[in-house]
Amino acid sequence: MKPSIGFIGLGLMGKPMSTNLLNAGYPLTVWNRTASRADELVAAGAKLANSPREVAEHSDFLITIVSDPPALEEVLWGGTNGGALAGLKAGATYMDSSTVSPELARKIAAACANQQVRFIDAPVTGGDWGAKKGELVFMMGGDAEAIKDAGPILEVMGKKWFHLGPNGAGQTIKLAMNAILALEVEALAEAMALVTSAGLSGEKLVEVLQSSMGRSGLLDVKSQNLLKNDYTPSFPMRLMLKDLGLALDLAKQLGVTLPATTAAHATYAHVKNAAKEDMDYSGVMKFWKK
Amino acid sequence: MKPSIGFIGLGLMGKPMSTNLLNAGYPLTVWNRTASRADELVAAGAKLANSPREVAEHSDFLITIVSDPPALEEVLWGGTNGGALAGLKAGATYMDSSTVSPELARKIAAACANQQVRFIDAPVTGGDWGAKKGELVFMMGGDAEAIKDAGPILEVMGKKWFHLGPNGAGQTIKLAMNAILALEVEALAEAMALVTSAGLSGEKLVEVLQSSMGRSGLLDVKSQNLLKNDYTPSFPMRLMLKDLGLALDLAKQLGVTLPATTAAHATYAHVKNAAKEDMDYSGVMKFWKK
Repeated sequence: MKPSIGFIGLGLMGKPMSTNLLNAGYPLTVWNRTASRADELVAAGAKLANSPREVAEHSDFLITIVSDPPALEEVLWGGTNGGALAGLKAGATYMDSSTVSPELARKIAAACANQQVRFIDAPVTGGDWGAKKGELVFMMGGDAEAIKDAGPILEVMGKKWFHLGPNGAGQTIKLAMNAILALEVEALAEAMALVTSAGLSGEKLVEVLQSSMGRSGLLDVKSQNLLKNDYTPSFPMRLMLKDLGLALDLAKQLGVTLPATTAAHATYAHVKNAAKEDMDYSGVMKFWKK
Repeated sequence: MKPSIGFIGLGLMGKPMSTNLLNAGYPLTVWNRTASRADELVAAGAKLANSPREVAEHSDFLITIVSDPPALEEVLWGGTNGGALAGLKAGATYMDSSTVSPELARKIAAACANQQVRFIDAPVTGGDWGAKKGELVFMMGGDAEAIKDAGPILEVMGKKWFHLGPNGAGQTIKLAMNAILALEVEALAEAMALVTSAGLSGEKLVEVLQSSMGRSGLLDVKSQNLLKNDYTPSFPMRLMLKDLGLALDLAKQLGVTLPATTAAHATYAHVKNAAKEDMDYSGVMKFWKK
């Protein structure tokens, strides 16, 4: 019999991920802060729990994917009945796919170890498109055995998973990756600001880049946003800003200077603070719009 | 009969470019500051001139590719006999493939127009490997007709050429591209400094990036330099630092703020100033080496 899975966080990523698990035949219990996000899943056979703790009580394998560290702490330790951690049974496995600090991942790992629960930090990349297709990439920290045992479940949601080290390693690599992506968008935006201010065509710049060492996954996916001024959220700027902040926090703890990431963080923060609407992180281009 | 070509600047790029032209059957006259760089070309049939002016006097089509704006000004206007511009005949075409400021490109264009010479600014990308294979990409500013007429010559050295606007446009797009490449290396170096300081593997970071939207031409070409600490010059740091400086000069003239490019420039300058040896621009990673 397949292990029962609990899933907390039915956002842009969590909803398609949990849908894939349900479709693969896993008994599924879910919870989301906004309960209506669970309607389709419940109609398709998932159980809706009344609290994160209740999800955990029904789960051999618990997965969380929420927007930021405070949201995760609330799910794990908050509420009136003790949160999800209090509900986890000895012998269960808990995998967090939120992007949070490595420090928080290690704190959770310690709490789980105290109650004989195996913990894996496993943030993802691949976007909502990858989540729908079951083609996410997981960056994982934790015990090798626990990650190996999670294989069949990971296979439903992802195309690749990397064991990167002890707990916190998944988060560290994820923060490094997002710093790179944020800087690549910043670089493209700065270059586009330069050439368009000089009266030249941003489209031509992109065309030349595609023919050069400047080609990149980022350019394929985001250059059209900048050219069309269309910043419909795919990966929201507020989350990218949060991740840049977490990367800089980590750098500070480690005593590492990150000059360009620091500059990009300031640019993103400026645009985010001036924005009235939610937007994709490629909206950093608005820094240069009069 | 094929037009006679003059070629000034037989460096890492210029030597293979001119060799390809000679092999394609163009009558070739060359000049280089260090004359011995011309030995192989002369042995293969090129004529060695005594001055830039003498090259120009023998050329229907003049090409220059030197390291920076002062070197180019010296070639064009310096020397005891007036430099290359004084030697160009009315009706000739002059193409500069150095990376210099758009401002200098426009100054040259004006000087050429005064003597009925067609000028094209045409910096290249593709590295010494692309130069050898005849697979460079040219970023071109100037008159459409002149660029069209240059087609057969460009075909010998390049795989693609883009007409990007009036004189200066080629240089502007090239500076924007190099700002992007410098920032991508900086981003990779910052991310690698972060994860290795946290005790994790730079190799694993690269492996994860290759499976994600973080994949890029830059990552393919430069990540091994950073992982192996091997900064043998392919594109030398002093040239990248010069190009970042030119990009920031242009931004200042246009009133455009480039926060991350500014931060990257400072990081490259710090490493360059501390270095005793010449190295590739990926050597910016040394910023984080104790």
